[in-house]
This record gives sequence, structure tokens and C-alpha cells, in this order.
Amino acid sequence: MWVKTVSPRFGDVDGLGHVNNTVIAVWFELGRNGIFRIFEPNLNLSHDTWPLIMAHTDFDFVGEMFFHYDVEIKTWISHIGTKSFTCYHEAWQDGRLCAKGTAVVVHYDFKNKQTTPIPEDKKKLLTEHFLESKGQQY
Amino acid sequence: MWVKTVSPRFGDVDGLGHVNNTVIAVWFELGRNGIFRIFEPNLNLSHDTWPLIMAHTDFDFVGEMFFHYDVEIKTWISHIGTKSFTCYHEAWQDGRLCAKGTAVVVHYDFKNKQTTPIPEDKKKLLTEHFLESKGQQY
Amino acid sequence: MWVKTVSPRFGDVDGLGHVNNTVIAVWFELGRNGIFRIFEPNLNLSHDTWPLIMAHTDFDFVGEMFFHYDVEIKTWISHIGTKSFTCYHEAWQDGRLCAKGTAVVVHYDFKNKQTTPIPEDKKKLLTEHFLESKGQQY
Amino acid sequence: MWVKTVSPRFGDVDGLGHVNNTVIAVWFELGRNGIFRIFEPNLNLSHDTWPLIMAHTDFDFVGEMFFHYDVEIKTWISHIGTKSFTCYHEAWQDGRLCAKGTAVVVHYDFKNKQTTPIPEDKKKLLTEHFLESKGQQY
Repeated sequence: MWVKTVSPRFGDVDGLGHVNNTVIAVWFELGRNGIFRIFEPNLNLSHDTWPLIMAHTDFDFVGEMFFHYDVEIKTWISHIGTKSFTCYHEAWQDGRLCAKGTAVVVHYDFKNKQTTPIPEDKKKLLTEHFLESKGQQY
Repeated sequence: MWVKTVSPRFGDVDGLGHVNNTVIAVWFELGRNGIFRIFEPNLNLSHDTWPLIMAHTDFDFVGEMFFHYDVEIKTWISHIGTKSFTCYHEAWQDGRLCAKGTAVVVHYDFKNKQTTPIPEDKKKLLTEHFLESKGQQY
Repeated sequence: MWVKTVSPRFGDVDGLGHVNNTVIAVWFELGRNGIFRIFEPNLNLSHDTWPLIMAHTDFDFVGEMFFHYDVEIKTWISHIGTKSFTCYHEAWQDGRLCAKGTAVVVHYDFKNKQTTPIPEDKKKLLTEHFLESKGQQY
Repeated sequence: MWVKTVSPRFGDVDGLGHVNNTVIAVWFELGRNGIFRIFEPNLNLSHDTWPLIMAHTDFDFVGEMFFHYDVEIKTWISHIGTKSFTCYHEAWQDGRLCAKGTAVVVHYDFKNKQTTPIPEDKKKLLTEHFLESKGQQY
């Protein structure tokens, strides 16, 4: 599991006093930095080096988040396929689970514009963050 | 169907040259303005007047979007329940479907913190934008 | 003058009911698309083709902006130097000037990492949008 | 001085590989959380309790910022007037000053829609973060 603590910003809060739903998408993307470093340790954003492309994201908003407490973004790997894997994210504030969701990331060759198998050594590193280690069903 | 045309912004494009996935969440929220006006015509953001809260969003990224063309955000209603409804969104650029997704919106009384039935007159207005009018399966 | 109409998004409005100040930065950047097309008509974001880099921006918030009206972003050129130029932006909502600001853009060779003179033909195109045509002092 | 460390997000980086200029506005706003807590310790965003409104921001982009290093946002108070004060922000990455700027914040009564004097006890707390303590000219 990767953990990233973020502080809500004044403008992250919408007109009803809650963190806006689109901010969660931003925070969960931030939660994937550890995964990105597995595939490109220097985080060099180039079609020659970057091997990942997003296919899907989803979000369940199960509790309201507010301005005044930090938020913990927790990230696991919930599925590893041949050419893609799935991240599972949770956002916690003040001891409450407030949002959860997944992201399907495809291993991709940008130069040849085609999906490619995830190398075994990368799979092994992803496995260390597998959701089962959380000790719960999902 | 509601249609909203947006122009990608320089900073919407990420380091790989594509519109970032989190921008789609922002554009789809913009696509819901017509729906919001059905429930609160003055778009007055107050716990006394605003009756909607987000429960779920999902996004499928089926094609890359770039800086140089405008994007059409198309929004339909795909399901109407007793206390919630589902929006279906598509993002089109240069004649290509590039992203699609749904949003589940709950009818909610913020003062009493409970879900409430969608009034029949609002249901009728939502029905006018039902996805079936698109003439395709989803 | 370039004019771009934008619709405030639910999440653009902050906890006090006003469009957040950081959203104005996003809108003014969108207002520069016409300028960007002068320098790179295909908006191709590559170090080989893109010749502009931002040096400065400033914003004066002179009126509150709300959710329920569209906003007009007006953009002029207020100064043209040898290697840089200045944009002047205004945001209008419901007949009121709500924000204004400038952006200093430098003509830049990303490959050689150095400023370069603005070509005369580009200067001429910028001049067509000069602020004096607005008929007022600034 | 307040210090806040932020991690650039994949989508914060624009098509030229640098953190987009509008992201700095977001980070500097985040840097003001400590100031906001002086005036409203619970960060309760209500017209009854929130006493601050933004009047001006500016940004100088003096170096490029990239994806792969965290960024330190440092915030000082550079001026205290009767009814407003000025924040001074810097963004540092990998030992380099990359952006700096100010924000003018006005003490404001939202209910009566008028500026009001900053209370003396708040002035004193702001003074503890005065830029002079940085030991340099500005």
C-alpha cells in the first residue's frame, strides 16, 4: 500500500462546503505516483520512456470531505492482468472512509501505438502492494 | 441531450500530449449544468435550495484527446430511480468518441441529511433527455 | 481582441459561493489560445515547434463571480517587446468587469534554452489585437 | 514562515514537460492555509465566520518545475495594512527557486459587504511570519 497525505485547499471546497468530486480524481492520480515510479523511476514523461496509459477510472463518494482536516490517500493493486492492472484507492478523512475507486492502467508502447505485456519484474513489484495484504474482501 | 462545447486549455494537456484524464471529470461536471438547472433554476448553491449530491462517477477513456480541436460534451439521462438518477456523458473530438462515463446523482435534503424522492415534475423534465432518444443501445 | 465565453462549473465555485481565484488563471490561459495559434497554428506541443514560455502573470479581483452566468474572457496585447510580449485579460459576467490581469510571454527556443527575437510577421499579427483598439487607457 | 511540501501530479505537468503555471496558483493558495487558520481556526467556510477575500495575486516564473521532485511552498507576510495584508510565496524544487509571487488579502465582512480593520491580535500573529525574519531584502 502507498499512502499520500494531502491537505484540502480553499478552492477544493465547493459551494456546498464539501470537497468537489473532481478533486478526488486529482488526489487518486497523485496516489499513483508510487506505481508510476515502478515503471519509469525518473518519471520522465516521454513517448520513448513512459509505458502506461489510462483506460478507466471510477469513484464512489461515500462520505463528505471538508476543508479542515488532511486526507489520506491509500493505494493498492487489486488486479494484475497480462497487459493491464487495476489500482484501488481510498480517501480517508478524520477516521472516516469518504471515497473509494479504481483505475485501470494499460501497459502501452506509445511509439508503436499498441498494448504490450507487463514485464515480470514489474508484476512482482506491483504484487508487493496487492490488496490482499489489506486483509479484507473487496 | 445537452451539448456543451469546450476548448482544451494549454494546461489541460499532460506530459504525453493528451488531455489529462482528470480534465474529463471536470468537463462532464460542466455537462451537468443543464440538469442542475432543472432542480435549481437559479443555480443557488445553498443547503436550503440545492437538492443534489454526487454518489458515483466512472470514466472510460477510449481515445486520446489533443490540444488543437474543440471537444463536444454530450449528456443524457440513462436511468431514473425513486431517489437518484444516472447521467451518461460522451466526449467527442474531431468526429471521434474519446471518453464516456456515467454519474449517479442522489436527490438529497442537506438540512435533514437524508435522501428524498425526486418530484414527479422533475422526473418528467429529466425524461425528455432520456438516452433512448439517442436511438442506440447502451 | 479575442473573446472566449466560458460557463462556470459547479466545482469552480468555492465555499463562499464565488468563483475561486485560481479558476481565473485557468480561464485567462484559455483566453490565450488565439495567441498560441499565431505562433504555432497546429498547437503542436513539442520542444521543436513551441516557441513560448510564461514569465509572469497577475490578477486583480475587482468583483465576485457566481455560478449562474456565463463569463466572457477578453484578451488583448498590451505591449510588444523584442523578445517578449504582454497580454491583457478581462473577465466579464452579467455586464460587470470582475477580474483583470496581465501575462508576460517570452519568445523562447526550448532546444537551445534561450530567448529569441519575436519574428516581425508574428509581431504584425499581435499588433492587430493591440489594446489601443479598445479605445481606452490602461 | 509556513512551509508546505507538495508532490507534482502527473496531470500538473503540461505538454512541454513543465508544471503548468496555473498549478502554482493552486499551490500558493494551499500555502495560505496557515494564514486562514489565524483568522478562522476551524476553517469554517461561512459568510458568518470567514473574514477574508482575495484582491490580487501575481506570479513570477523564474525556473521550470518538473514531475519528479517534491516542491516546497514557503509563505511569509510581507506587508500588513489597516484592512489588508500581503502574502509572499516562493516555490522551491531540488534546491532551486522556481516561482515567487504575492497575494493581497482583504479583511472583509461578507454579511455587510464591506472591508473591516484587521484586529490587533490577528496582526500580531501575522507579524510572527514577517518576511524580515527571512533575513533578506525583497
